Amino acid sequence: MANRRRPSPSYSLTLRVEYPNQAGMLGRITSVIGEQGADIGAIDIVNSTRQVMTRDITFSAADYEHGRSIIAAVRGLGNVDIVHVSDRTFLLHLGGKLEIRPKVPLKSRDDLSLAYLPGVARIVQDIVNDPQDAFNLTIKRNSVAVISDGSGVLNLGDTGPSAALPVMESKAILLKEFAGVDAFPLCLDVADEDAFVAAVKAVAPTFGAIHLEDIKSPRCFSIEERLTAELDIPVLHNDQHGTAIVVLAALINALKIVRKEPATLRVVINGAGAAGTATCRLLQRCGIQEITVCDESNLKASLRGADVLVGFGRHNMLEVEDIAAMHSDAIVFMVAHPQPEIEPEAITEVARVIATGRSDFPNQINNMLCFPGFFRGLLDARARAVNDEMKLAAAHAIADVIGRDELHEDYIIPGIFDRRVAPAVATAVANAAHDTGLARRVTKASVR
Amino acid sequence: MANRRRPSPSYSLTLRVEYPNQAGMLGRITSVIGEQGADIGAIDIVNSTRQVMTRDITFSAADYEHGRSIIAAVRGLGNVDIVHVSDRTFLLHLGGKLEIRPKVPLKSRDDLSLAYLPGVARIVQDIVNDPQDAFNLTIKRNSVAVISDGSGVLNLGDTGPSAALPVMESKAILLKEFAGVDAFPLCLDVADEDAFVAAVKAVAPTFGAIHLEDIKSPRCFSIEERLTAELDIPVLHNDQHGTAIVVLAALINALKIVRKEPATLRVVINGAGAAGTATCRLLQRCGIQEITVCDESNLKASLRGADVLVGFGRHNMLEVEDIAAMHSDAIVFMVAHPQPEIEPEAITEVARVIATGRSDFPNQINNMLCFPGFFRGLLDARARAVNDEMKLAAAHAIADVIGRDELHEDYIIPGIFDRRVAPAVATAVANAAHDTGLARRVTKASVR
Repeated sequence: MANRRRPSPSYSLTLRVEYPNQAGMLGRITSVIGEQGADIGAIDIVNSTRQVMTRDITFSAADYEHGRSIIAAVRGLGNVDIVHVSDRTFLLHLGGKLEIRPKVPLKSRDDLSLAYLPGVARIVQDIVNDPQDAFNLTIKRNSVAVISDGSGVLNLGDTGPSAALPVMESKAILLKEFAGVDAFPLCLDVADEDAFVAAVKAVAPTFGAIHLEDIKSPRCFSIEERLTAELDIPVLHNDQHGTAIVVLAALINALKIVRKEPATLRVVINGAGAAGTATCRLLQRCGIQEITVCDESNLKASLRGADVLVGFGRHNMLEVEDIAAMHSDAIVFMVAHPQPEIEPEAITEVARVIATGRSDFPNQINNMLCFPGFFRGLLDARARAVNDEMKLAAAHAIADVIGRDELHEDYIIPGIFDRRVAPAVATAVANAAHDTGLARRVTKASVR
Repeated sequence: MANRRRPSPSYSLTLRVEYPNQAGMLGRITSVIGEQGADIGAIDIVNSTRQVMTRDITFSAADYEHGRSIIAAVRGLGNVDIVHVSDRTFLLHLGGKLEIRPKVPLKSRDDLSLAYLPGVARIVQDIVNDPQDAFNLTIKRNSVAVISDGSGVLNLGDTGPSAALPVMESKAILLKEFAGVDAFPLCLDVADEDAFVAAVKAVAPTFGAIHLEDIKSPRCFSIEERLTAELDIPVLHNDQHGTAIVVLAALINALKIVRKEPATLRVVINGAGAAGTATCRLLQRCGIQEITVCDESNLKASLRGADVLVGFGRHNMLEVEDIAAMHSDAIVFMVAHPQPEIEPEAITEVARVIATGRSDFPNQINNMLCFPGFFRGLLDARARAVNDEMKLAAAHAIADVIGRDELHEDYIIPGIFDRRVAPAVATAVANAAHDTGLARRVTKASVR
């Protein structure tokens, strides 16, 4: 096999090939693709004449280079023409991943007189008289802006605003799919932190909450802080708090398995970036007293005798001995995706509970488990701001989706498609908003 | 009848009434509602016991005060309890008028690996390599921001951003309904013109075009000008140009009826606001040499001998004699909605062609005829900016929807539900973009 990583549907290619219509040709083509380590998914006939056969061959590759090498190998056969290469991921993204649709009819004069003029003028006048009515009579009731400047996109760094848009679209559609939130992506072309804050303040009237995403550290801290102070709607930087909340949820359940208490725990956090810093703060808030936040230079020393590692660090920076040097019943969470500090398969003998960012290993730590439900709860309570009580409540809600009797080293965190998670998080966040005086709704919200 | 204006579905109320279950009671209630001049639409039983009848009575009133007076009259019956009043316009606006939906599936791991991680990282990398790919692989391809600061909303003036949101939502859903454009409303909380411009520049990467709306004059002129100069996507202030384009379309057809030429025409424009100024400029661009833009103080004098009046003025400021003093075959367009300078019914004998903003009179001038198709055309051509050639092309496209043989004093402008209009405008605008070098698409766009 030419490639160590496994074929993935996100590198699914379709080759349209033309070749002499002779016995054995298709077998030669599929063999060469298979020898390259690709998974062939479908073989379709496009056209067939006595001389020439045209087929679409769809397969998954492991990554870009792998795809290129397979195409080169097919070309190498000599008498096979590659007419066209299409890429399933690119096809899916054509024209973007979301659309905006009317919720009201616009087919008749009567429809228009209600939804447009003259009816809409009455709604305007009503909101002039009582601005809070915007929460009832406009999309503000259910709308979240997913905002980035593209300064810290995935593992790709400062891509700028245009290249960040596909990611913000993804977040937006996840908010709708998992929690019914109408989220719109806004990628900001701003020169500095002040301009970022000014732009978000300018657009805030349209939204019930602000979801910040993929902003580099340390800018992300001050932007969130300033916006929280200056806006009357909640602001949450998901890379920080979404991740911290899911880590805490996993830890809550892991501690039930190893029967340790937060107050006696020694925790090491590898990486003082956005997620590491927020995780440290949230773990402190739930009673963990001894937390070491470190970087690569002193990580190994810190791990000796530690109960918990929460890692946001570089690929392959740890060895089995480092984990073995931890306290008994070690808990190891490696959140960096897709490449953890040490492959989890290597430490199953020396760590008791392991969680990673990987989808092909048990216990995936993914902030998808938090943010859709969290924003649902903020909107349901019509919250003014986010506080730590909401974050703690969300973490417990995620942890509690797994019953005591189901709990297991390989099942401390619900799966990302577990549909119980988002409503549980939403209820917990909305209730925390009510209990801490940050809800504008008079009655407690029920989840939709 | 207590009220001169006619009942409208935009003031449709439903009263839930409880009254003694006796013969003749319902008749007394409906009589009192009918005597007040309302149109009763539906009478439904909610509950009936031997003693008490509960019904929902739905009717249209003429306006807010009319509705109040009807409710008071029903209360005046004495033995009728009004349990609840609901208002169809407010019910329709609950939670806003648009929603955001995924266009791609998110039900399985495979779905996620394409639409989210790791697939989306490939799309990000592609746009980093070629920023123009954002037009293919993100919502930028089909997205328009409908932006206002709420400084000049309808006839209501400076309502502020929150109260402007229902109007921007209406514009957004019209863009989708009539032209398939994904438009999102953004109401800006900005202190001044500089902050407005900065905010729009900040959000621009997400959008293929900017639709400005309901911004007061003269701020609207400089904002549009600055944004056009500084952005690489088209910017159009609809109150100015949408209206001007539809006025020109109506004039093109009216001139065919009266057989006059632009070059010999004397035109009076009443009102030098956003729409009046833009209309003047556009009429000049199509060869009209004598245009007087005036206000109330010298309007009557200017009208003597004029061929065309385009009015954006105050209700009832003109008398029949003023129109009679115009040149023969006078063309009178009164765009102010809903209250024109003189009721059109009063001047049918002295003007040859009349158009108004009213939906209950022939020839409605409504910028709905322009803006959805205009933005469709801008997006289809991937235009860099808006120019006068596009505006002239759009006006001719609207005018040409009506065939020579259909043309008539009462039919110079298509109806707002005429589905031929938006595609015709889109094609005209896209072609003008290509012909004038402002299109970024290599091939001419076909309308979807």
